[in-house]
Amino acid sequence: MAAPSPHPLPAELVDLRERVRTFIRETVIPAEPAPGDRMPEQTRLELQEKAKAAGVFAPHARAEHGGLGVPLEHWSPIFQEAGYSPIGPSVLNCMAPDEGNMHMLAEIATPEQKERFLEPLVRGEVRSCFGMTEPHPGAGSDPSALATTAVPVNGGWVINGEKRFISGAIGAAYCIAMARTEATGDHPAGATMFLVPMDTPGIRVGSPIHTVDRYIDGGHPHLHFDDVFVPDEAVLGAPGEGFRYAQVRLGPARLTHCMRWLGLARRAHDTALDRAEQRELFGEPVHRLGLAQSLISASVIDIETSDAIIAKTAQLLVSDPKAGSAMSSVAKVHCSEAIYRVIDRAVQICGGDGVSDGLPLAQYLAEVRPFRIYDGSTETHLWAISRRASSARRREVEAGAPFLGTPTRHPEPEAAPEAGA
Amino acid sequence: MAAPSPHPLPAELVDLRERVRTFIRETVIPAEPAPGDRMPEQTRLELQEKAKAAGVFAPHARAEHGGLGVPLEHWSPIFQEAGYSPIGPSVLNCMAPDEGNMHMLAEIATPEQKERFLEPLVRGEVRSCFGMTEPHPGAGSDPSALATTAVPVNGGWVINGEKRFISGAIGAAYCIAMARTEATGDHPAGATMFLVPMDTPGIRVGSPIHTVDRYIDGGHPHLHFDDVFVPDEAVLGAPGEGFRYAQVRLGPARLTHCMRWLGLARRAHDTALDRAEQRELFGEPVHRLGLAQSLISASVIDIETSDAIIAKTAQLLVSDPKAGSAMSSVAKVHCSEAIYRVIDRAVQICGGDGVSDGLPLAQYLAEVRPFRIYDGSTETHLWAISRRASSARRREVEAGAPFLGTPTRHPEPEAAPEAGA
Amino acid sequence: MAAPSPHPLPAELVDLRERVRTFIRETVIPAEPAPGDRMPEQTRLELQEKAKAAGVFAPHARAEHGGLGVPLEHWSPIFQEAGYSPIGPSVLNCMAPDEGNMHMLAEIATPEQKERFLEPLVRGEVRSCFGMTEPHPGAGSDPSALATTAVPVNGGWVINGEKRFISGAIGAAYCIAMARTEATGDHPAGATMFLVPMDTPGIRVGSPIHTVDRYIDGGHPHLHFDDVFVPDEAVLGAPGEGFRYAQVRLGPARLTHCMRWLGLARRAHDTALDRAEQRELFGEPVHRLGLAQSLISASVIDIETSDAIIAKTAQLLVSDPKAGSAMSSVAKVHCSEAIYRVIDRAVQICGGDGVSDGLPLAQYLAEVRPFRIYDGSTETHLWAISRRASSARRREVEAGAPFLGTPTRHPEPEAAPEAGA
Amino acid sequence: MAAPSPHPLPAELVDLRERVRTFIRETVIPAEPAPGDRMPEQTRLELQEKAKAAGVFAPHARAEHGGLGVPLEHWSPIFQEAGYSPIGPSVLNCMAPDEGNMHMLAEIATPEQKERFLEPLVRGEVRSCFGMTEPHPGAGSDPSALATTAVPVNGGWVINGEKRFISGAIGAAYCIAMARTEATGDHPAGATMFLVPMDTPGIRVGSPIHTVDRYIDGGHPHLHFDDVFVPDEAVLGAPGEGFRYAQVRLGPARLTHCMRWLGLARRAHDTALDRAEQRELFGEPVHRLGLAQSLISASVIDIETSDAIIAKTAQLLVSDPKAGSAMSSVAKVHCSEAIYRVIDRAVQICGGDGVSDGLPLAQYLAEVRPFRIYDGSTETHLWAISRRASSARRREVEAGAPFLGTPTRHPEPEAAPEAGA
Repeated sequence: MAAPSPHPLPAELVDLRERVRTFIRETVIPAEPAPGDRMPEQTRLELQEKAKAAGVFAPHARAEHGGLGVPLEHWSPIFQEAGYSPIGPSVLNCMAPDEGNMHMLAEIATPEQKERFLEPLVRGEVRSCFGMTEPHPGAGSDPSALATTAVPVNGGWVINGEKRFISGAIGAAYCIAMARTEATGDHPAGATMFLVPMDTPGIRVGSPIHTVDRYIDGGHPHLHFDDVFVPDEAVLGAPGEGFRYAQVRLGPARLTHCMRWLGLARRAHDTALDRAEQRELFGEPVHRLGLAQSLISASVIDIETSDAIIAKTAQLLVSDPKAGSAMSSVAKVHCSEAIYRVIDRAVQICGGDGVSDGLPLAQYLAEVRPFRIYDGSTETHLWAISRRASSARRREVEAGAPFLGTPTRHPEPEAAPEAGA
Repeated sequence: MAAPSPHPLPAELVDLRERVRTFIRETVIPAEPAPGDRMPEQTRLELQEKAKAAGVFAPHARAEHGGLGVPLEHWSPIFQEAGYSPIGPSVLNCMAPDEGNMHMLAEIATPEQKERFLEPLVRGEVRSCFGMTEPHPGAGSDPSALATTAVPVNGGWVINGEKRFISGAIGAAYCIAMARTEATGDHPAGATMFLVPMDTPGIRVGSPIHTVDRYIDGGHPHLHFDDVFVPDEAVLGAPGEGFRYAQVRLGPARLTHCMRWLGLARRAHDTALDRAEQRELFGEPVHRLGLAQSLISASVIDIETSDAIIAKTAQLLVSDPKAGSAMSSVAKVHCSEAIYRVIDRAVQICGGDGVSDGLPLAQYLAEVRPFRIYDGSTETHLWAISRRASSARRREVEAGAPFLGTPTRHPEPEAAPEAGA
Repeated sequence: MAAPSPHPLPAELVDLRERVRTFIRETVIPAEPAPGDRMPEQTRLELQEKAKAAGVFAPHARAEHGGLGVPLEHWSPIFQEAGYSPIGPSVLNCMAPDEGNMHMLAEIATPEQKERFLEPLVRGEVRSCFGMTEPHPGAGSDPSALATTAVPVNGGWVINGEKRFISGAIGAAYCIAMARTEATGDHPAGATMFLVPMDTPGIRVGSPIHTVDRYIDGGHPHLHFDDVFVPDEAVLGAPGEGFRYAQVRLGPARLTHCMRWLGLARRAHDTALDRAEQRELFGEPVHRLGLAQSLISASVIDIETSDAIIAKTAQLLVSDPKAGSAMSSVAKVHCSEAIYRVIDRAVQICGGDGVSDGLPLAQYLAEVRPFRIYDGSTETHLWAISRRASSARRREVEAGAPFLGTPTRHPEPEAAPEAGA
Repeated sequence: MAAPSPHPLPAELVDLRERVRTFIRETVIPAEPAPGDRMPEQTRLELQEKAKAAGVFAPHARAEHGGLGVPLEHWSPIFQEAGYSPIGPSVLNCMAPDEGNMHMLAEIATPEQKERFLEPLVRGEVRSCFGMTEPHPGAGSDPSALATTAVPVNGGWVINGEKRFISGAIGAAYCIAMARTEATGDHPAGATMFLVPMDTPGIRVGSPIHTVDRYIDGGHPHLHFDDVFVPDEAVLGAPGEGFRYAQVRLGPARLTHCMRWLGLARRAHDTALDRAEQRELFGEPVHRLGLAQSLISASVIDIETSDAIIAKTAQLLVSDPKAGSAMSSVAKVHCSEAIYRVIDRAVQICGGDGVSDGLPLAQYLAEVRPFRIYDGSTETHLWAISRRASSARRREVEAGAPFLGTPTRHPEPEAAPEAGA
């Protein structure tokens, strides 16, 4: 199911979207690995060359850094097309964690850092990773528990700590690592981000974590920092501002996950529609059976509302980044849950084929299951959403909005009421 | 909770929205009837005068007909503000069924019809009703079952039939009545719409239907047409085109219901937030209890996704009315169910006060319960959504999209496999 | 839909159930008030006489106190039959709050108290009420916040405080009132229950609370205790044991609510099935439409699982009252939510008639809405259920059950893994 | 979480349950394969010997056939204990498809067939499979579409056809195969069951189907019957009665799946409780966070209601098999969906560990996903449940129950009502 476009996209983006769609359907889908398998490195490199030739590579990166320069408010239709194949975003070089890293580097890095780290990333020459999550009780759903430290030394910093779930770390050229730092000079205590090449002495990829997904290149291993020295130029942005930058990264990064996986949900939904067209049950094609219709229509609603809240959030991220970041919690919860439901229903419509590798749906289901957990679990976001709602309302009332929470009370009866009154 | 505005509204609409908000909070809310009561006619007329004075009356109607001329794609923020009070839309003259009738008359009526029927309606001098639904087995969820007939006679038509659930009929100045007509001349057989003054001989308001809502003026009675003669000028648009016009009316009419009731859902949500701020349980304010946070955050998501799908649908109704009308099914189901859930959760957060008339929430719940049924029940829309999804996908595949519904099959084993394989 | 009986009821109870069913269908249903109206006192008294004549009166009360002596584990099928009419339980004298009071008095009262208070209640000569809930910040979802006090004086006690939501208070002969008491002699500080005739000086029925339900006789008003003197014989059970007795009352009382309202849910479901049989849509009877089938089957599952968890809990309340009381939280949440959904779906299946008073469904919906709040709101029970689950598991692990919460970790790679691994 | 037992189990079964629990926790759990791996044949055989030694082997089979003879109404607590390990049922020889085959053979087979086929199966010497499902458009969710045929020849029958999803076929000693047969003599046309040794000429295990589950031994391959001759003694029961026998098998077989997987859901729930005890977030153990409590309590309700509906259905299967079989649809839908939700919530509570193989939860989720599809998909059962509910109610009304589906209508007003009425 292709997304209708309420906002007339600029003509060149309509054209780009069409080219992405064609590229995905004609070039990428035929090259997909079997369900449960990963895309071989070689396949990715070959497909990336074809993507460049087709003019669909790195659509979101700025033109000055080697991308196609699509503005954030129009990423969604493009990313959804890319995500229609689970390897599409990787082929188009708009997959996590690289895509989020590109966005953050474009916002924060120095010209030298951009040249050294960002541009090869945009060109697809290297991969990267983002080192924030740590083993319990360190940074996880609660980033402020950050335990890795960086201590200033002569001419640089020394980083010590352990990270885990570092997606893409295996084979990455560098890591953007978060570490706790003390206040220094003008800089507050807090977290600092460092650009750390993976061949720096003291960095070591640790034990792997085998998760159920298959389409993020480079695994999700532990990553050890043992007395890792980095020079001052490795600091990304200003010291002590790491948590703020993480938000800069996370708002859009959460939303681009929504966009990509929504594309995959559309793929699953189409697969189910096709199966329902062909398969008969009780003498009728499945798509005419009421209980299947109930699943199909619920999925359409999930897809369209996800598309709508993504569009709304993307626009807010541009016009009011703070409000957009808050709204990205809403979008992330709604989309991650909705996308999972859509794929789950597609499995159900396809019956036994849905849970076998004759169709890729069970792998899609496994692929998006973690999305309800990473980038802030559903429950963590719900908690944040609720707190924000309460405090926003408190401020409205303090600013003069009528307080609505006091029940009115009926007057007391003048005499004892009679039974049955 | 006020809606953040991703699309920067034009400055004059930001200003209008602010004025509507102020008018509702300062003038309308203090005049609301007690829960379960209706707004007296006199109150409505007085408040409407104040709305005119405040420059917030008939915001959606075209300026040439006496309205404020807000374009359809921007109705939502204005209607949500109006709907923050259950009597707000009636006071601002943007309540069903008049608002939908205004829209349809503006699109279809002749200049004479506009002058005689539309303009007094926009000015709030009269009310109107829309006569489509009939007793079983006539037109209901399935409009094509229309049983009322209109037969051409010399200089006009004679209408016979019975309608029911004719919202607003009591006290209305005229009815836009749907009747089945035979093919005549160039006009196909089908349904025809007629503008019928309620004092026409043969029209009779029949037995009332007492429903649980309170804020649509004029009840939902039966309406009888016994040999009602109307002249040819009473035909609205072209004979035989009634079903098509009904769609013209219904797409936006469904969506404006969503807008208004979403405003009421925001009111309920604010009420719950205020109660949760004040009320303590187990030694903590309710808003800090996890189970209440779970309700609050779920309501935020329902509100924001409803707002987003309304915005998307409104834009589509402008840019591609056919796609917009189809999307209005999605919006209607999502919003009507979501709005009901939001108010239901607000009741829950307020505990015993939520189900008493000390707070208006139980009445709000009763008010929006029918919305899941009228304008096409949730189930009818789900059925339509599913059928449209199946046929749209069928067309995509016929146009060359890869068919995804065929499971691949593993090759047969060369020899009998061993146990445990 | 009548409940199938997995446990072969003793023959005399099969017979009783059949008589209750017949009595409700032939005698009670024809006498039901119109939707939204209350049963007049006179009607209740007349129907109660007929119930006595039919041998179906006070089925749950012990024979020695004037009841039919059905044991608790078999109440459910009888109460469900009674609840098939919303006035049935009142007619059979097994309605809240009297039924719960009878149960507690039978367990705790002295012979003199039984003769004076319990027996007239069982015979239907008087009604009673239970005075626990108080205005915020007193006893509500959190009973331990009890603010009403009783102070020992010469020969008795003096009670002061305000209660609210005292169901049945108007017209009741006496109130079982909870008040906070200090430690005295052997008795700990805590709550004490008192049997207080409603004509005792100082008791005053206060402002009414108008809730959306209609079938609990005697309203839900505030109740004031201003220096109310009661003699020592008014103490029910032992001083300081009130919270424990409240649990004795609440476990079964919660469950009998489930039984009665489940009967009403069956009524709503039957109403919907009958409507679906008669009503046609798109050329088919509604019950053949898939989306209606989806609603019907979901309701069957809700009804059968509610019946099953009630049976399980009733048996536990007999064999292990503490476990039964804990399980009653599970039953209460599941049943109250399920019953509400069943009636809500019935409304939906009946379309416009479902939200009008042409059918009683909208009133049924209003009737059971408060049940999700009273006797412990859904959220309060969920919180308690979660805490009990966590501590029960903690005890299991402490007692030697294997601890399952430690993730295993893969060994570290010997050398740096390659990209794509 | 161990199941409380409302029905005091007979003392010897309390003892058996305790032994099963101990055996599973002390002997089976330590031998479990890593998540995603299958149990090696050798491990199974060794563990089965230990199960025999512990007196917990084949608990459900009749003593005369070599089992422990637990009656059907008490299987649930035993099977839940077995299912607490995903390999437990296989180790105890009460896993599908063998367990269902044992039940059917005990009911239908001749003494010779029992000796040859049933007893070695009970002793764990062989495995079996059940050959009903076929490729589209043959027998699947709709068994009546059976396409495999058996034609009578001299001294026996010749079977031709293709089966698929034949769980356990690889390594099985025999297949109970369903084939379409014509009417012969006294026997009606319909389906007939045959006991077919897997080494019969013409039987061939075809292409495998790789599904996401791991704990059913013997795969789910296609199975080909090419001119397979079987003698008359291979007929199981009477010719033409196959569909009826399939119901004999399916009612309990569906329910034992519920029992086993409910045990696994308890395991997942305990795992989550343990993780929530240990893991901290925002400075508190996870089990004290409201959003986690919300997940935990929802799972408790799912577990307890599943347990209750299983108990109710098991009792009905004994006292009224036809009603029990119908109720098994309700139990199957409720339990399969509830069990999936419980495991899904456990994944969520465990965060990143929940979707990695550091904990087995993701594999459990994959394991029970197909259960919502096999043995009749949720949607197929919903459809059947709805149809049964409609026809049961129709019969009630025909038998004299009051018809409830006719809305009452208010009288018409005497004069035209005024506006606002």
